[in-house]
Amino acid sequence: MLRKDLLGLRFLTTKEIEEILNLARDMKKSLVYKIDRTSTLKGKTLVTLFYEPSTRTRTSFELAAKYLGANVVCIETATSSVVKGESLIDTARTIDSMGVDMIAIRHPMTGAPGIIAREVKAAVINAGDGINEHPTQALLDMLTILEKKGRLKGLTVTIVGDILHSRVARSNIFGMTKMGINIRVAGPSTLIPPGLQNLGVEVYNDADEAVKGADVVMALRIQLERQKSGLFPSLGEFHRMYGIDDRRMRLAADDAILMHPGPMNRGVEVSYEIADERICTADEQVTSGVAVRMALLTLLSERSAAYENIV
Amino acid sequence: MLRKDLLGLRFLTTKEIEEILNLARDMKKSLVYKIDRTSTLKGKTLVTLFYEPSTRTRTSFELAAKYLGANVVCIETATSSVVKGESLIDTARTIDSMGVDMIAIRHPMTGAPGIIAREVKAAVINAGDGINEHPTQALLDMLTILEKKGRLKGLTVTIVGDILHSRVARSNIFGMTKMGINIRVAGPSTLIPPGLQNLGVEVYNDADEAVKGADVVMALRIQLERQKSGLFPSLGEFHRMYGIDDRRMRLAADDAILMHPGPMNRGVEVSYEIADERICTADEQVTSGVAVRMALLTLLSERSAAYENIV
Amino acid sequence: MLRKDLLGLRFLTTKEIEEILNLARDMKKSLVYKIDRTSTLKGKTLVTLFYEPSTRTRTSFELAAKYLGANVVCIETATSSVVKGESLIDTARTIDSMGVDMIAIRHPMTGAPGIIAREVKAAVINAGDGINEHPTQALLDMLTILEKKGRLKGLTVTIVGDILHSRVARSNIFGMTKMGINIRVAGPSTLIPPGLQNLGVEVYNDADEAVKGADVVMALRIQLERQKSGLFPSLGEFHRMYGIDDRRMRLAADDAILMHPGPMNRGVEVSYEIADERICTADEQVTSGVAVRMALLTLLSERSAAYENIV
Repeated sequence: MLRKDLLGLRFLTTKEIEEILNLARDMKKSLVYKIDRTSTLKGKTLVTLFYEPSTRTRTSFELAAKYLGANVVCIETATSSVVKGESLIDTARTIDSMGVDMIAIRHPMTGAPGIIAREVKAAVINAGDGINEHPTQALLDMLTILEKKGRLKGLTVTIVGDILHSRVARSNIFGMTKMGINIRVAGPSTLIPPGLQNLGVEVYNDADEAVKGADVVMALRIQLERQKSGLFPSLGEFHRMYGIDDRRMRLAADDAILMHPGPMNRGVEVSYEIADERICTADEQVTSGVAVRMALLTLLSERSAAYENIV
Repeated sequence: MLRKDLLGLRFLTTKEIEEILNLARDMKKSLVYKIDRTSTLKGKTLVTLFYEPSTRTRTSFELAAKYLGANVVCIETATSSVVKGESLIDTARTIDSMGVDMIAIRHPMTGAPGIIAREVKAAVINAGDGINEHPTQALLDMLTILEKKGRLKGLTVTIVGDILHSRVARSNIFGMTKMGINIRVAGPSTLIPPGLQNLGVEVYNDADEAVKGADVVMALRIQLERQKSGLFPSLGEFHRMYGIDDRRMRLAADDAILMHPGPMNRGVEVSYEIADERICTADEQVTSGVAVRMALLTLLSERSAAYENIV
Repeated sequence: MLRKDLLGLRFLTTKEIEEILNLARDMKKSLVYKIDRTSTLKGKTLVTLFYEPSTRTRTSFELAAKYLGANVVCIETATSSVVKGESLIDTARTIDSMGVDMIAIRHPMTGAPGIIAREVKAAVINAGDGINEHPTQALLDMLTILEKKGRLKGLTVTIVGDILHSRVARSNIFGMTKMGINIRVAGPSTLIPPGLQNLGVEVYNDADEAVKGADVVMALRIQLERQKSGLFPSLGEFHRMYGIDDRRMRLAADDAILMHPGPMNRGVEVSYEIADERICTADEQVTSGVAVRMALLTLLSERSAAYENIV
């Protein structure tokens, strides 16, 4: 049974992750076979509160809620009364006072979702906070792997790229270790956070070594805007050392898949020839993302309904 | 029975205000107890047409309509074809020709809602026009007072701050006097419009005097952008002379409440220590705001349906 | 029976255009008599993907879908992940992978809707591409004429203004010739594309000659931003030579109507005195626009449902 909020995979048990993934598989079938589920969350309301632009994630939440018949209101900073200098907590309490059931928040500050979760009655879903977590992305990655491989336990997943600044990598590391996946990471040493070994992660600087025999290779999106930080090699050098191309992918297990959270920088973290191949699950991950969010909204909303009945 | 439009409280009778507040109390119960009302306005459509940004008011209208099952389309100037130089009247007639039932308009120009109301079949709701009126804000203030005090008639309400530029103050003055409330205003003499005495309002320059014995103290939001006008004292000076803090609030009646339309500038119009106290109804006002708008949309839409049947 | 997509009137048969217009007439009655049709497309989803701002067209699609009970998600470039450098095809495939049924796209590049139509399972509707086509505008123009004149075949329609840059003119030329309408165009010779004669269009430089005896006069919107191109006469000169005023309109047939896609530049392509006259169908065209889009969404969605059943 889920708690009131989903702040990060760090806080979930193996059982809770399983519960979400199980329901998400059903939801994905509804999506693929176009089964009408608009009565599931009829009368419930989701607010997406995004302090960073992300059409991809926002649209996925918006569609997930609408497919279930919920109301959705989207608030983005550019147009929000944040410009009048309102504090994050005041904004969240205002939205909460309007009677909404769930708030999906994206914020550049690590911990922002947790701060507002304490202040509001609505269920809070972390849609990405700073360089901390992006739990729904990791859940959709796990759903995709589960469907492609039939299991999670005992698999080897190699995550390649800028691990340090990636909330996708962090959430996957927290979630996948709980599901019994062996995780390897590979990237320039300046872009690997310290302490990963304590979480049971194997750290490589050589991408070929890291990919060898892996069941899943996950290429992270290079945030081009970080280039100027000086921590990065040039794009060409990055591609040569850490980009996933056909040759490198052939080092992985025979039926290995290539994952990417999208949007892909072709010729940087993945090669042009491999980006559109059958082994690349980028589009599949998008469908999984809607399914996972449908499952989460359903579970959190049941939880909050049960909670209301108790009090 | 309401007319086609809600342009300002200046034009409503005591009976019409009572009708809105009565239905709004029911709507508030639906909100608090999460009763599904999505069939009330099924098939009806609201357009929010905002020429000034206001996530707070726009979201409140949007949620009110969605809680009642209505369709909502939001149009904001930044993205609107107003950039192609279309006139206000042409824009309104275009929206009207699309078959919508209600238009909630915010516009920097006093009188804009009235201008379009004459041109369209849809019901027009003033969501704030220039420094003229903001009738739904005053209605939600009255609903909040009614719930806290059990009555309106005979109460004393003190409004403090920049009265001159406040459409919230103007609508409250028009509405509250009709409901038998005694109104006092306090603020720098440069920020008090002339002629308030003719409406039965008591004008004070000394905030302590104005607050003494009041049942309700309403602190207006200071619009920091007006500071440069020269009419204003400094923010520190303003807070000392007109800010509501614990000492000043103790001059009011024993069970007095402190109201604020939000978002609050803590340390300016209200002190930090009092902003989050039990007596401050800011969050409660937000809930009342959704309820009042739900009531209004229902009444205006019944009215317009009746009107259609006649013609 | 419509194909999967509506890319342009160039690709439709006379029969297909008739099918859309017939259903659109029914939809218009629903609009005018406010008949609830929110169960028609329940559970279906439309995404509007606009790479050029257009509140008018976007709102028309959005309302058409909502009147039929469909979900709508609006994506505009300014806030879209296009800013992260994602390609058009990747964006379209991502939206498609989210399980939506229809995508209405506006794009400054000729052919963009066709490019994505090949990549996605969703039905693609061209909402305006470069200076190529704007098929739903031409369909609404034909619906308006059909209602005003009782027929299309054998009528004479004169289109006046900047034909070269007008996708409205191009779609009307493709569609109307298929419906047996005689088309005349008039404008500065620099703004008439070559080869129109091959499509059976009569080309005039003299507006008076072109308007003489016409059943319908269609004034195109002058895109003021093109003025600087040097192809244009001054606005005053344009108005004198090609603007439609009372005198010029009296050269047309006795019961001729004046059409304009809106928003109108009064005093440029139409005179102030004639813009608000009974013969001007600008507002009527707006209502027709919603009706045509309701018809299209219904037909495309039936088509795509049938397609799903086959495979």
